[in-house]
Amino acid sequence: MTIGPIDRSQLRWVEPMLRDCCEVFKEEEIGTAVQMVHGAVLTGEYSVLAAADGKRLVGFCIAGQVPLTESTWCLYWLVVHPEFQRRGVGAALQSGIEREMRTSGGQRIVCETSGRDCYAPARAFYRSAGYVEYGRVADYYSPGDSCIFFCKVI
Amino acid sequence: MTIGPIDRSQLRWVEPMLRDCCEVFKEEEIGTAVQMVHGAVLTGEYSVLAAADGKRLVGFCIAGQVPLTESTWCLYWLVVHPEFQRRGVGAALQSGIEREMRTSGGQRIVCETSGRDCYAPARAFYRSAGYVEYGRVADYYSPGDSCIFFCKVI
Repeated sequence: MTIGPIDRSQLRWVEPMLRDCCEVFKEEEIGTAVQMVHGAVLTGEYSVLAAADGKRLVGFCIAGQVPLTESTWCLYWLVVHPEFQRRGVGAALQSGIEREMRTSGGQRIVCETSGRDCYAPARAFYRSAGYVEYGRVADYYSPGDSCIFFCKVI
Repeated sequence: MTIGPIDRSQLRWVEPMLRDCCEVFKEEEIGTAVQMVHGAVLTGEYSVLAAADGKRLVGFCIAGQVPLTESTWCLYWLVVHPEFQRRGVGAALQSGIEREMRTSGGQRIVCETSGRDCYAPARAFYRSAGYVEYGRVADYYSPGDSCIFFCKVI
């Protein structure tokens, strides 16, 4: 597996990967993630790292500096194809984005995720990666779907 | 004092008002706020309410629905000219934006503010307006400048 900046040729894997994460992403979320990845490749507004198995994209993450902060980054998306989960792909993407962040002067990274059951593995991943929960808001995404906010100091 | 959608003729007051809030806003923040207000008037992407004393703009707020949420709004900016503070202008803007939010199906509003001393009145305002702190992140904006996160259920 290799980790590196996403290549244009890998973009076609992004949408199918999100759709293969059954019942996790809503249609609007898929659209937003696809738009952010494509936009980032065009404009460089965000950093996008790809995890590849040979030529195949098996995971990606999108992060960027939070506007109006000196050294705070936000991890917007971290997605691993279901067939490649539990093999360290997420941890490798996380390490890669932390390295990039440090090079750019980043000192902490925030992210948010859902309190839904299907996000339990995501929450466990963030905790094991060193993130600490700093707050939660009930019904944030939709009724019964809370938001949990995490921060990791680098 | 009147509260209503901002009018193009009021835009010229926005930047001077931010500059008159001595030592509160950094240059980059002024640029961002001015850009958001102008962008919102052009595109309707955000709601901007103006508080006016006669023709003069004495306060404004910018809010919008948080992407990928069903009923959560974010209050991005709420600014009152120093000469008009402590007269209920902020509370009137807050009531106005809540009314607009409810009409659009909004059920909660989040906002964030700085932990710096000069933001103590802002934090007191949010608490008195019914916001509850749900988290804070140290050094979020810059070293020594934490971020305090608030939420108000409507």
